[in-house]
Amino acid sequence: MYETLLMIPGPTRVAPRVLKAMSENIVNHRSALFGEILKDTNEMMSEVFQTENDSYLITGSGTAAMEAAVGNIVEKGDKVLNIVGGKFGERFMQITEAHGGSPTELSVEWGHAVNPEDVKYILEEDEDIKAVTIVHNETSTGVANPIAEVGKVVKDYDALYVVDTVSSLGGDDVFVDGYGIDICVTGSQKCLAAPPGMAAITLSDDAWNVVDKTETSTYYLNMKKYKKSGDKVPPETPYTPSVSLMYAMREALNIIMEEGLEQRVIRHKMAAKATRAGVKALGLELFAEESAASNTVTAIKMPEGVTDKDMRGTMRNKYHIELAGGQDHLKGNVFRIGHMGNITHREILTTMSALEMTLKELGFDITLGEGVAAVADTYLGCESF
Amino acid sequence: MYETLLMIPGPTRVAPRVLKAMSENIVNHRSALFGEILKDTNEMMSEVFQTENDSYLITGSGTAAMEAAVGNIVEKGDKVLNIVGGKFGERFMQITEAHGGSPTELSVEWGHAVNPEDVKYILEEDEDIKAVTIVHNETSTGVANPIAEVGKVVKDYDALYVVDTVSSLGGDDVFVDGYGIDICVTGSQKCLAAPPGMAAITLSDDAWNVVDKTETSTYYLNMKKYKKSGDKVPPETPYTPSVSLMYAMREALNIIMEEGLEQRVIRHKMAAKATRAGVKALGLELFAEESAASNTVTAIKMPEGVTDKDMRGTMRNKYHIELAGGQDHLKGNVFRIGHMGNITHREILTTMSALEMTLKELGFDITLGEGVAAVADTYLGCESF
Repeated sequence: MYETLLMIPGPTRVAPRVLKAMSENIVNHRSALFGEILKDTNEMMSEVFQTENDSYLITGSGTAAMEAAVGNIVEKGDKVLNIVGGKFGERFMQITEAHGGSPTELSVEWGHAVNPEDVKYILEEDEDIKAVTIVHNETSTGVANPIAEVGKVVKDYDALYVVDTVSSLGGDDVFVDGYGIDICVTGSQKCLAAPPGMAAITLSDDAWNVVDKTETSTYYLNMKKYKKSGDKVPPETPYTPSVSLMYAMREALNIIMEEGLEQRVIRHKMAAKATRAGVKALGLELFAEESAASNTVTAIKMPEGVTDKDMRGTMRNKYHIELAGGQDHLKGNVFRIGHMGNITHREILTTMSALEMTLKELGFDITLGEGVAAVADTYLGCESF
Repeated sequence: MYETLLMIPGPTRVAPRVLKAMSENIVNHRSALFGEILKDTNEMMSEVFQTENDSYLITGSGTAAMEAAVGNIVEKGDKVLNIVGGKFGERFMQITEAHGGSPTELSVEWGHAVNPEDVKYILEEDEDIKAVTIVHNETSTGVANPIAEVGKVVKDYDALYVVDTVSSLGGDDVFVDGYGIDICVTGSQKCLAAPPGMAAITLSDDAWNVVDKTETSTYYLNMKKYKKSGDKVPPETPYTPSVSLMYAMREALNIIMEEGLEQRVIRHKMAAKATRAGVKALGLELFAEESAASNTVTAIKMPEGVTDKDMRGTMRNKYHIELAGGQDHLKGNVFRIGHMGNITHREILTTMSALEMTLKELGFDITLGEGVAAVADTYLGCESF
């Protein structure tokens, strides 16, 4: 059976040279050899985060890094402003609660971006808020939140600015230092195009000051331990890391350095723009407001009378292209096309054509080629994508 | 440069077919295809744990599973009996403290096994103890604790029996159901001979009853979420698992099934016995009391006047064999030979010969071949090893 094309918002297709890196023999994680690999990988992570601060790799999923971000700064009763406009915004709030924090929820309608003025209003009203959490790219809805603008608001207050860039880093603009982000987290299996199982985190000096004063109930995700081990020369991890995944991360980051971060973000922007143009040309409706549309995943309203099984089942079983469904209350109501990681114009063209055939088979009155033409038209004449 | 032979207590050498499994393309972790892989892997894990209960795989190190074991049953003020005779026994106590538990430390001199009577004495004195933690194989000292005997004691009390088999499962006798273990944890990179980055846990009905009543502060390691996802058909994980490491775990477990668990334990026992015979023949002294000697790692007292750099440096740089050093206060005072995972008589013979050459070069008056002869004599005449 030939490979299924993953057009989902993670895990994404991993380049053969990254897969190959994992077939290297395991080395002692306490050896100088591994220390050099970890150092390289940490440094490239900071480069991708666009920060002068150190980065740390955690063996675990993006959720582990989200918990590391919140669980090391929040104690019982601490007030946290959680911006919630989708499943992952909710997750930050659930983690806040698990660690005894007292959340103020800024609820944003799913499919819309937060208004920075609303953040300002809440921070103005309550000076005890210790941290603000926001999800840059809400994978569940295909919305990109304005993290630069929210950062400008938060910097006038004492609160730490905690940003989840799990499904945006490497595919959209994230300037950790430039945006005044105190804690930024990401995952391996999204725009970085490494296999799942690694997460990364970076913390500002202000964040470390709070971490140092906070009694955390996490052990595996205790960032003080990561710092203590990371400060060694060469650096170490506090617990045995996944050596193979570290090889993969390093190679995936090498690829990003070769492509260039700026170019990579352009490629993602173009793929997103082309995808939106294609689906609209086919008469489908976008779920997210277009002014806040994500660079890395597009959520599309399920056409009237079509089931998730019809749509995604046909795409998967007949055309061997895997799309994502809706999450929670959006289950069956939207489907999502992930265009992150190594995705290029070629995969967008292919996916659009398969989507046309699927719609035609489901009885829709469309003309084959209309979506593809809109995709092509988006790319036509662009110098770099 | 040719491969360094890892004779350390994890990570251990991974078979080429396991490394190769990781080069498979990434699939959607929410697909039926991945569900089948997870189901297979979970079931083989339960077989290796020798339990009728379900097992769960966690993307993370063994420490993540240790925290999952304690953090889901311990709330603020809960009394826990922590048996501490080495670094990993200490870790269980630190995790207990991180989760607000009130530890009673049963301190055992490093290098010795716990006396089950001492456990009985403490449980008899304090009926409020909610859980007993023990490390089966204390990797830091090369001691195997009598988990069967301690299990017989604990079953007369209400306390849950929590056992760390990170560096013993697959290399020593562990009968989770037979020993009355309520929560058992292990890691991928020790006797199971998979790459590091995966941990496994299994829980009894009694343990689940406590988990259900406990408000945990962990989110990533919340076992209720693992159970909810694991109960689906086919099973899922609550958060994105490392797909590549799951491929590797499945293949490593396939190898264990092919070898047979009983035979695998015999192989480890023989390797340990041969290692001890060899080092003693060379006039070196074992650190652990021999009646409690580990099947999977042997700690040896550093000979007078020899530095860690002399001993391990020569073995590594000249003979390309990696040994482990001492941990914490044993640093420089012991060195450790790991003989776990795929290690056979061949690697033990090689290591012993290199150790002889190293000692000779460091000025010791030994006869080349004495250690190797003792190793060979251990294996000679045995039918199966």
